[in-house]
Amino acid sequence: MPSVMASVTETKTSAPAALLADLRRIVGDAWVLSDPDDLLLYEYDGSVDRALPDAVVFPDTTAQVQAIVQSGLRHGVPVVARGAGTGLSGGAIARCGGIVVATSRMNRILEVDTRNRRAVVEPGVVNADLSAHTHRFGFHYAPDPSSQYACTLGGNIATNAGGPHTLLYGVTTNHVLGIEFVTMDGRVVTTSALPDGPGYDLTGLFCGSEGTFGIVTRAVVQLVHTPAGVRTLLASFDSVPACSAAVSGIVAAGIVPAAVEMMDQLALEAVAAFIPRANLPVDAAAVLLLDVDGVPAELNDREAEIRDVLLANEARDIRVAQNDAERNLFWLGRKSAFGAMGRISPDYYVQDGVIPRTTIAYVLDEIRRISRSFELPIANVFHAGDGNLHPLLLFDNRVPGELDRVLDAGTAILQVCVDVGGMLSGEHGIGMEKQAAMPLVYGPDDLDAMRRVQQVFDPHALFNPNKILPAPVGCAEVNNLRRSASETSA
Amino acid sequence: MPSVMASVTETKTSAPAALLADLRRIVGDAWVLSDPDDLLLYEYDGSVDRALPDAVVFPDTTAQVQAIVQSGLRHGVPVVARGAGTGLSGGAIARCGGIVVATSRMNRILEVDTRNRRAVVEPGVVNADLSAHTHRFGFHYAPDPSSQYACTLGGNIATNAGGPHTLLYGVTTNHVLGIEFVTMDGRVVTTSALPDGPGYDLTGLFCGSEGTFGIVTRAVVQLVHTPAGVRTLLASFDSVPACSAAVSGIVAAGIVPAAVEMMDQLALEAVAAFIPRANLPVDAAAVLLLDVDGVPAELNDREAEIRDVLLANEARDIRVAQNDAERNLFWLGRKSAFGAMGRISPDYYVQDGVIPRTTIAYVLDEIRRISRSFELPIANVFHAGDGNLHPLLLFDNRVPGELDRVLDAGTAILQVCVDVGGMLSGEHGIGMEKQAAMPLVYGPDDLDAMRRVQQVFDPHALFNPNKILPAPVGCAEVNNLRRSASETSA
Repeated sequence: MPSVMASVTETKTSAPAALLADLRRIVGDAWVLSDPDDLLLYEYDGSVDRALPDAVVFPDTTAQVQAIVQSGLRHGVPVVARGAGTGLSGGAIARCGGIVVATSRMNRILEVDTRNRRAVVEPGVVNADLSAHTHRFGFHYAPDPSSQYACTLGGNIATNAGGPHTLLYGVTTNHVLGIEFVTMDGRVVTTSALPDGPGYDLTGLFCGSEGTFGIVTRAVVQLVHTPAGVRTLLASFDSVPACSAAVSGIVAAGIVPAAVEMMDQLALEAVAAFIPRANLPVDAAAVLLLDVDGVPAELNDREAEIRDVLLANEARDIRVAQNDAERNLFWLGRKSAFGAMGRISPDYYVQDGVIPRTTIAYVLDEIRRISRSFELPIANVFHAGDGNLHPLLLFDNRVPGELDRVLDAGTAILQVCVDVGGMLSGEHGIGMEKQAAMPLVYGPDDLDAMRRVQQVFDPHALFNPNKILPAPVGCAEVNNLRRSASETSA
Repeated sequence: MPSVMASVTETKTSAPAALLADLRRIVGDAWVLSDPDDLLLYEYDGSVDRALPDAVVFPDTTAQVQAIVQSGLRHGVPVVARGAGTGLSGGAIARCGGIVVATSRMNRILEVDTRNRRAVVEPGVVNADLSAHTHRFGFHYAPDPSSQYACTLGGNIATNAGGPHTLLYGVTTNHVLGIEFVTMDGRVVTTSALPDGPGYDLTGLFCGSEGTFGIVTRAVVQLVHTPAGVRTLLASFDSVPACSAAVSGIVAAGIVPAAVEMMDQLALEAVAAFIPRANLPVDAAAVLLLDVDGVPAELNDREAEIRDVLLANEARDIRVAQNDAERNLFWLGRKSAFGAMGRISPDYYVQDGVIPRTTIAYVLDEIRRISRSFELPIANVFHAGDGNLHPLLLFDNRVPGELDRVLDAGTAILQVCVDVGGMLSGEHGIGMEKQAAMPLVYGPDDLDAMRRVQQVFDPHALFNPNKILPAPVGCAEVNNLRRSASETSA
């Protein structure tokens, strides 16, 4: 994880003693952090951004979350929900200070109903824990971010998280049936707990709202039947365009693999250094990692179809995982890719643009051009089947000025994505990192419609302020406004 | 379609001459209806509700829709979008009078991009026309309401329409990537046109909002690859519980057919009378109609798995469609079921409750009890795989008091659905027919959150007023408020 100072500095509030006393009364002394050394641990998430909260509080129940939110409103300080802090866009950072509500104690799986394929969970349940728990019944929770052994379902809902297998299964919003959330005045709202429930789709609206509408305290999620078999292929190519063409070719042939992941040469190099036993083809220009789900009988057919497309697109080598151990090794390489960058670079910065699948070769070429022009190595490891890029800009933050150059290169990459009809983010969220880029894809009326919806849920700029939408004012103004509102109402 | 008076009568506005002059100027004389005889045709949709609009207008462009909305706001009259009027909950009825905006001229397929599997359409495109158009490329649009040869994509978005194949493919919201809509002040907002775009999910929010947020003037929808093969099975059962158990059994076995439809004996009787050549087993207590998608090689395996489950649940007979003609005949029977009711009853009223799949047998038994207790025949033909019921309450509206009894029986059925953890509506929407039932599943805070979101988009109660949410005031009050607001701002 990069340990760099954000380029944006923000004025923050300071924690009034009365607020801390309130919080301690609500959750007990042991569950409130306010010591500066303790708070430092909550200054980060997985992005390059940083800001100190005034307090971190660990509620155990919905009622405690209600009381915390009411206290935040009363004292005029922001309330920022935080799962595992693995987010990559600064979504869980208390940008304007205030209370961080860490959901780690609310980590109970309350109910598993395999006959109706759903589970009721608290927001702090770790993504992979739900699948581990339901695996014995033959089910799992489909969205599988690479951080799934740490990240929480609440955080997944906040960012509308994806993962390699979204190609077949869809992202978080497709798997959340209903939620319970706490509103800015401390009320509890429950949305439909069946798919496509009646009335307005508040469940869907909350997915991806990054804590700016309220705090999710419970969720009903869908479980999927774990397929009877999986076939995993690793195909190497001597050129990036050939590899990209293979991705389009597979989709155009009507094949829907469970996952189609791509890694370029620099990414391979990093992963190979990190996990030598994966024996990755480090001399390839690019590889594709493919999963196909199904019953054993059909896996052979599907593999044959995919082989045809891969070979027609000049794959030079196709390896098939011979057993679960080898399969897990292939995937370990992919899922460790971000962490593996540490082997070849002190820091990295990751982008999350989404592009039409057919433009992958062109955009990767443009990224190579940007890499040369900004003199920054860029590794690519991404969800090719979804057209969801993850260029990793490698740099050394000890070198003054490097971060600015990285952010500029990132913006240049986003502009390329937008120019081909793409989008700013596929699964990492907008947070505080890409909000300035929102006008690249949305007009003033579009952003205004979003802003008005946000203000319905958060009229006092209480919940995770100055995120997602381009900020018209700084944190100081926001906090002052909130404070004077709370004084007026007090 | 039932031709009955709604039990609810509403005060409506009358069309000022200045409004009509405005509308004629915007779209041309030929495209405005205001003659009472003409308006009568727009008094209905597919529900039992009825209300006369003041004018019906047929715009051809987004700019014309903008001007119409601005005119509605200026004159203080409601604006109600209407597709084909096939809705089953009164969603397209101008309950409080005003302007009906019929989208039938905006029926162009603007772009088909099979490589990125999407199409850009106008709201008046007929659902089946898009599939017919893209079929040549091997693609189709997945949501397939039974009214698909008439209903429009704009109407589908408004109701978040489903269809038999939602079991595998999901409902409309899963297939709409982005929209363009006109706001209450006549601005045009565009949402993301890639799945899971950045920022708040306004696309998802609009799906199912039944014209109460704005008017959709363009949509980017997802195309799916038409499967290489389909196997269609028709299984008969001697008991409804056995048939219901087979549905749960199939899902529990991890099989995901493309469709699992159920028809009970009374439904079979009606369909058999309507389409004798379908040769349906009219003596069965219930049948299941199943579609399995896949490549030819896997269809045999899948059929064998399904047969095992069907036979384990005492299916007495399993027929497999031998060719496309027979397959189409099976499906014609299912898709004509609502229309076929005319063979056995002058009128019908359809409910749309969703229940956990495992409770189907219990709920059907309760429906039979309600049928006996209200002395109303009830046929069941529905999306069993989704647990989405469609009880058809058969009655004769010429008999005084019948409709009230039908509506009471419908409410009793909804209560049963809610009691087992179900929901009011799966795909037909809430409209004006089920809004009073919303408090059965949502608390005051839940409804309040929805209401506040609605008011963001429609502060003047301009768009399809008094729909979805329980109405705190009648149309007269709403229209007076809107009129005085428009006079103040004029």
